[in-house]
Amino acid sequence: METPLAVVETTPLIDHHCHGVLGGELDRRAFEARLTEASVAAPGTSLFDTAVGFAVRRWCAPVLDLPPHASPDAYLERRAELGADEVNRRLIGAAGVELFLVDAGLPGELVDPAAYGGRSLDVLRLERLAELLVGEGAAGFPDRVRAALGRSGAVAAKSIAAYRVGLDLDPARPSDGEVVRAASRWPASGSGRCADPVLSRFLVWEALERGLPVQFHVGYGDSDLDLHRADPALLTPLLRAVQPLGVPVLLLHNYPFHRTAGYLAQVFPHVYADLGLATHGVGDRAAAVLAEALELVPCGKFLYSSDGYALAELHHLGALLYRRALSDLLRGKLESGSLSGEDAVRITRMVSGGNARRAYRID
Amino acid sequence: METPLAVVETTPLIDHHCHGVLGGELDRRAFEARLTEASVAAPGTSLFDTAVGFAVRRWCAPVLDLPPHASPDAYLERRAELGADEVNRRLIGAAGVELFLVDAGLPGELVDPAAYGGRSLDVLRLERLAELLVGEGAAGFPDRVRAALGRSGAVAAKSIAAYRVGLDLDPARPSDGEVVRAASRWPASGSGRCADPVLSRFLVWEALERGLPVQFHVGYGDSDLDLHRADPALLTPLLRAVQPLGVPVLLLHNYPFHRTAGYLAQVFPHVYADLGLATHGVGDRAAAVLAEALELVPCGKFLYSSDGYALAELHHLGALLYRRALSDLLRGKLESGSLSGEDAVRITRMVSGGNARRAYRID
Amino acid sequence: METPLAVVETTPLIDHHCHGVLGGELDRRAFEARLTEASVAAPGTSLFDTAVGFAVRRWCAPVLDLPPHASPDAYLERRAELGADEVNRRLIGAAGVELFLVDAGLPGELVDPAAYGGRSLDVLRLERLAELLVGEGAAGFPDRVRAALGRSGAVAAKSIAAYRVGLDLDPARPSDGEVVRAASRWPASGSGRCADPVLSRFLVWEALERGLPVQFHVGYGDSDLDLHRADPALLTPLLRAVQPLGVPVLLLHNYPFHRTAGYLAQVFPHVYADLGLATHGVGDRAAAVLAEALELVPCGKFLYSSDGYALAELHHLGALLYRRALSDLLRGKLESGSLSGEDAVRITRMVSGGNARRAYRID
Repeated sequence: METPLAVVETTPLIDHHCHGVLGGELDRRAFEARLTEASVAAPGTSLFDTAVGFAVRRWCAPVLDLPPHASPDAYLERRAELGADEVNRRLIGAAGVELFLVDAGLPGELVDPAAYGGRSLDVLRLERLAELLVGEGAAGFPDRVRAALGRSGAVAAKSIAAYRVGLDLDPARPSDGEVVRAASRWPASGSGRCADPVLSRFLVWEALERGLPVQFHVGYGDSDLDLHRADPALLTPLLRAVQPLGVPVLLLHNYPFHRTAGYLAQVFPHVYADLGLATHGVGDRAAAVLAEALELVPCGKFLYSSDGYALAELHHLGALLYRRALSDLLRGKLESGSLSGEDAVRITRMVSGGNARRAYRID
Repeated sequence: METPLAVVETTPLIDHHCHGVLGGELDRRAFEARLTEASVAAPGTSLFDTAVGFAVRRWCAPVLDLPPHASPDAYLERRAELGADEVNRRLIGAAGVELFLVDAGLPGELVDPAAYGGRSLDVLRLERLAELLVGEGAAGFPDRVRAALGRSGAVAAKSIAAYRVGLDLDPARPSDGEVVRAASRWPASGSGRCADPVLSRFLVWEALERGLPVQFHVGYGDSDLDLHRADPALLTPLLRAVQPLGVPVLLLHNYPFHRTAGYLAQVFPHVYADLGLATHGVGDRAAAVLAEALELVPCGKFLYSSDGYALAELHHLGALLYRRALSDLLRGKLESGSLSGEDAVRITRMVSGGNARRAYRID
Repeated sequence: METPLAVVETTPLIDHHCHGVLGGELDRRAFEARLTEASVAAPGTSLFDTAVGFAVRRWCAPVLDLPPHASPDAYLERRAELGADEVNRRLIGAAGVELFLVDAGLPGELVDPAAYGGRSLDVLRLERLAELLVGEGAAGFPDRVRAALGRSGAVAAKSIAAYRVGLDLDPARPSDGEVVRAASRWPASGSGRCADPVLSRFLVWEALERGLPVQFHVGYGDSDLDLHRADPALLTPLLRAVQPLGVPVLLLHNYPFHRTAGYLAQVFPHVYADLGLATHGVGDRAAAVLAEALELVPCGKFLYSSDGYALAELHHLGALLYRRALSDLLRGKLESGSLSGEDAVRITRMVSGGNARRAYRID
């Protein structure tokens, strides 16, 4: 097993999309429920027997003073012994992340990862915003959304249209009249969720109009999602329509459509891509998947994110596996002579944080 | 070339989806017609010049006492000399399969592979059942299907909805009235084939209701299929609807959607995946494809199948290439330190037969 | 870094799909605009920081007497110093291509690559033909198309239906009445572009009826394209319908659907596939992508193309990266023992030019 290249190892990361971590104790069932995108294991199986589960035992166990490959029970016992706070501190502290962009709109009593190292900026979850604002009545809904976006202080907005209505969005910007009608229909549906394509489009257009980069959940996630409706190619008409605004659109995760996302990030100057969730999700296959993801995307358009949520293990593994994958990739190119050492350093700086800094106008 | 890991080499396989083998002689044209999913080669080309064709010459030739890479004609000459019975005995005997789950609903004078080693259990082909029962009249069709399923003795059912109507099935369970109407329309269509989405859904629901695991053909197959309609993501609404039944749904083959199948097998506790047909279909690329297939799927949800049909070479190569692929994969993980030896043994046992035993409640 | 296998290095290529090269000077912006499928880089980024950009610096710089990895500016300075004509002569001369099939229907003052080495044959761009002929009136349009196809002298026709209407074409051959009606609607749309599915189908059917092989753009391209509508699986009904004509249909590029294209080229005897644009587009990942592309396709059905356009670098890199990829692939198979040396030679000859010669009835 090789050590990552020094430049990769020492360059701090910007994690441009993640969530908070849990501060309390977790039993095995609760831990497994947060480890993958499954909420429950099949009878007779364990979600520790997944790529990410093996990675936790291999890489996180030593951070908790256990030998690599400690058993799940030993790992959870030691985790409880140290307490969540110390575990979070160790795992996030060792991740080498200088800045977290945090979508805090997920359920649970979550602690900002920056509480354990680095700093953080807010990402505004658009559907959550709409759900908070719709209750005050449909008539003023568009203006209330605009006002909230204007004063949000967030560095970016996040759309989960992929989960709610799919990515095959009509590219046209909806009129306020259409938005009000959609908002009026909402309570009638009986669900508290923002799941109307008119509203999804409205939220994205309004955020971009205000200069807020928009992150889209793309590709795999939990079982609420229909994967074929989360193909980033479906976004193409909308990407084309918002291109004149010149505001970044960031395609998150993308697996198994990461090659398609790379294509979009190549041909549209305002489109960026990452591997997000898939970085830790595929465990020791991260290098193979990253190599595919980077086939078409310009190096100036690829970002790092962990999509870490609830378990600090995910923030830790995201950073660790990303660095190892990037290092493997660059080392292969250096060894075959297809890249110069100088370019390897430059690429590392871009995809570790430079691109995020440029896309989000940070600093 | 390395020998597979001992545990992989010696653990017997359960082939959870295959068909029978031909007992008679095959000339070159007839052999090539069964070697891949093509029924005929382009003029001036040979279907031996495919990944599976090269694998037959490399791996099956020595089983018939020929040197590796024997020419197609030499191979077929020796095959004829030994006779199909001896060839089947040798190839299936050397596959190391303890149990075959056999879908015997395909055309041809086929011999159960267990005639040459191991034992077998029946898989009931749902569309074939419907085709046999519809002739007795539409009125009693739903009850006749239920009765037949109840007394079938099969260990699983198999749906080829992907071939007939595509996998974008309405998740709702159809009423008997709808089924009777669909069955009445059938003869009018002039075709003997069950190709109505109402019937496809009905058959799947009824099998699962009776506790019969349902295998779905997913992904590539012969030229009868529209590949984009065989994407397992299209099944998501139905998978969600049948989840409360708690009965396994097994996604077969899946190539080139094997990563999507892995996602479904992760997030739905009742969903399982394999590589089936693709294992021998991609020849010496089996390790690369298997590595992709296993990125997301929990180790407790992946199974082995050969989809061997007509040629015992396919049953043999399925097992041989699966073992070599699994061994390559595990050896890589052991060498890089990402997996412990104990886990490698445990994973081997799960994906060789343990998962099939659990999913089908065998023994 | 290993030298390619001698047989791969020395076998001349047939580049069965490319375009002309520019004869004039190019500043950095103009060069970058032609290097990838992007027309412009994002602010603060360079399209040289892409797989193909790194490959230009690695492989083309030495052809212009520069060290590998020369900077973009040094490269373009040297390019200007030598002059486009000398650059084209060197890059195309060193590509080792004996025959170019040239689609000359793209905009720009383009020089036939055969002006710099090898010879060329014409590929007729179907939509361009329709655009030239529709102005003379809708009534006689079908007959004028047929006459033009009959006297074209082209070795093949090319369809960009993927760009204009998507590949989910109705398989039915349109009647002349339908075609005339579609042609009549055309000027009313105000666009000069042929973008009507009836016309796309008509053009393909007419070309194939006259024995002209039809090349389809498939998969990725520039931002005009909706990638999910360029999935070759969508062509399946049309492929099935034209199969009785027995005339080759050639799926170009195919990335990221190259496995799907391989499936189609396996099951339909008249279907062929290549990697085209992706060969240079993915740079040093060409070997990995080629390995995927060849998983299912019979060796007698895979062709080489560069899709080189405007920059002779692309014709050069296409050939160079294809040869290196093929060599890596074959060397891996030879070393693992999965292929004989004799077969490696035979495969090289097929996929370098033999298959193109057969499919297009050249010589």
